[in-house]
Amino acid sequence: MKTYNVGILGATGAVGQEMLKVLGERNFPINELRLLASPRSVGKKVTFQGKEYTIQLAAHDAFEGLDIVLGAASNAVAKEYKDDIVKAGAVFIDNSSAFRMDPEIPLVVPEINPEDIFKNKGVIANPNCSTIITVVAVNAINKLSKITALNAATYQATSGAGAAGPVELREEEEALLHGGAIEPKVFQYQIAENVIPHIGSFNEDGYTTEEMKMQNEGRKIMHLPDLKVTCTCVRVPVVRSHSICVTVYTEKPVELDDVRKVISEAKGTVLYDVPAEKKYPMPIVTSDQDLVYVGRIRKDLIHENGTTLWCAGDQVRKGAATNAVQIALVLVGLEA
Amino acid sequence: MKTYNVGILGATGAVGQEMLKVLGERNFPINELRLLASPRSVGKKVTFQGKEYTIQLAAHDAFEGLDIVLGAASNAVAKEYKDDIVKAGAVFIDNSSAFRMDPEIPLVVPEINPEDIFKNKGVIANPNCSTIITVVAVNAINKLSKITALNAATYQATSGAGAAGPVELREEEEALLHGGAIEPKVFQYQIAENVIPHIGSFNEDGYTTEEMKMQNEGRKIMHLPDLKVTCTCVRVPVVRSHSICVTVYTEKPVELDDVRKVISEAKGTVLYDVPAEKKYPMPIVTSDQDLVYVGRIRKDLIHENGTTLWCAGDQVRKGAATNAVQIALVLVGLEA
Repeated sequence: MKTYNVGILGATGAVGQEMLKVLGERNFPINELRLLASPRSVGKKVTFQGKEYTIQLAAHDAFEGLDIVLGAASNAVAKEYKDDIVKAGAVFIDNSSAFRMDPEIPLVVPEINPEDIFKNKGVIANPNCSTIITVVAVNAINKLSKITALNAATYQATSGAGAAGPVELREEEEALLHGGAIEPKVFQYQIAENVIPHIGSFNEDGYTTEEMKMQNEGRKIMHLPDLKVTCTCVRVPVVRSHSICVTVYTEKPVELDDVRKVISEAKGTVLYDVPAEKKYPMPIVTSDQDLVYVGRIRKDLIHENGTTLWCAGDQVRKGAATNAVQIALVLVGLEA
Repeated sequence: MKTYNVGILGATGAVGQEMLKVLGERNFPINELRLLASPRSVGKKVTFQGKEYTIQLAAHDAFEGLDIVLGAASNAVAKEYKDDIVKAGAVFIDNSSAFRMDPEIPLVVPEINPEDIFKNKGVIANPNCSTIITVVAVNAINKLSKITALNAATYQATSGAGAAGPVELREEEEALLHGGAIEPKVFQYQIAENVIPHIGSFNEDGYTTEEMKMQNEGRKIMHLPDLKVTCTCVRVPVVRSHSICVTVYTEKPVELDDVRKVISEAKGTVLYDVPAEKKYPMPIVTSDQDLVYVGRIRKDLIHENGTTLWCAGDQVRKGAATNAVQIALVLVGLEA
């Protein structure tokens, strides 16, 4: 079997660590594994498949000989090294938002637009986490009638803000239970026992950058250039797994039984919709696995071409690390 | 000043206790105060305005001589004693859902339809908590153009399930932080660090009873018999204050500046909409007070006659106890 030299840029962060875990689970055919990070992590030891690896410095000359680089760093770091990675002959599968809307760079969810992977010129972008979970949940409905719009409200976990997010949540829970100061650093306000309708930064029209990703990235992933999305992104005191309430509008009305059938048959989704048995997606059901669960499917009561549903998925895995590894698998000709 | 004989049916529960607190804050003109509850609470002592009261047994003959009875008990208890209360000559302002959709019984939010209070035949119903907060937030938009529909997703606090809700949340937080069993009794599943898209019971069409209240009660309160509401009700790990993400559809498109103006001028609402200064409604901002905060007001990106916003309010107070006391104030000719 052909094997590949794989690098992870930002190997010590929450997503980088999860990428490593998923590479192992999927038995990615690795020859050399190179773990790159910023100076403060250099020299740290990481174990992968029984072997110890030392974190190396991310630098302009650090990518020679690599075939694939998985990016789990900031936009600034991704921009800093993109050209070095491409020049070294590797394909850069980047989880930052730096290149997602570049028309020359594919933005891919392997269950939806795998063909775009092969249009890459050295860089492939991994979409936003809540966008991935939402589009995986709804995309199959396009088979019944083209999706024209989505109205979404998100319930996003603290780990979406990186490894420090759940730490801050737990520290605040401890303070609420047993006393102590609440001093938010990761989030704008106390997140324990609170919800914060503010993720990303605000545009002039009142939407946040995070909210607009679902429209802009959703258009590119699903090849629906006219898709309209109204989204409200909300942080909730959950450790892991984003949940999204979404009304899906289609060109023509669709039957609920057909919606359930295409979702149950789609790649990447689990139809989890038996309310009478209390089966509906929740963070405690969907964390630490790779599928997007879809439930609470019902007719919208306002528009006859609307279907309202509820979905949840692990945003560190399917919303980030797993999706990137799946792109790498398809890229080398393996099953995602 | 004329004074009144006031009873509270279900005086020891979360809403009953809050009604007592609000009666005091609003200096409700009380002559006799009679606190009624089930046998297990009889004999307990409660202090109100420096005076000690003993909880008395709720019984068929317990309402003689009362002018107003505030109901903070279950549907079954409300039905059990309704006729006794009316026969005793009191007006029953009931927070249960037993009578809300009875066409003979007014369903009132004093900021919206105070005139309906005087159509009562002995019973006035207090609406559902998330419905109250949502309709108070959006009602002023009717002045610009009639509201035709609402698409809402709720973020409902654990205290909406009664005093045992937050206790269960805190016990589960403790178990997650320091070990121990998680054994949900109040909620369907673990609520700490989770969200549960299930409040009320499921109808055949997939909506819950709680979700349909926003349409059915919203129609009656706002006098909009054709109002359509798609709602998803979700429990979140918050102690107090419900938040709601809502897209408001109007007959004609409305201007955002006009929406902000009418909301800022409306009774019962606070316009809290300065995203650049991180001012938007949240549970930690809106708990333990009586106003509904409204923010994140922006044009819906799908329908030109849509406005999307975010609101939050204390559902034990404005969503229950305060609203009932306000009805009582209007009933006796005082300012609500």
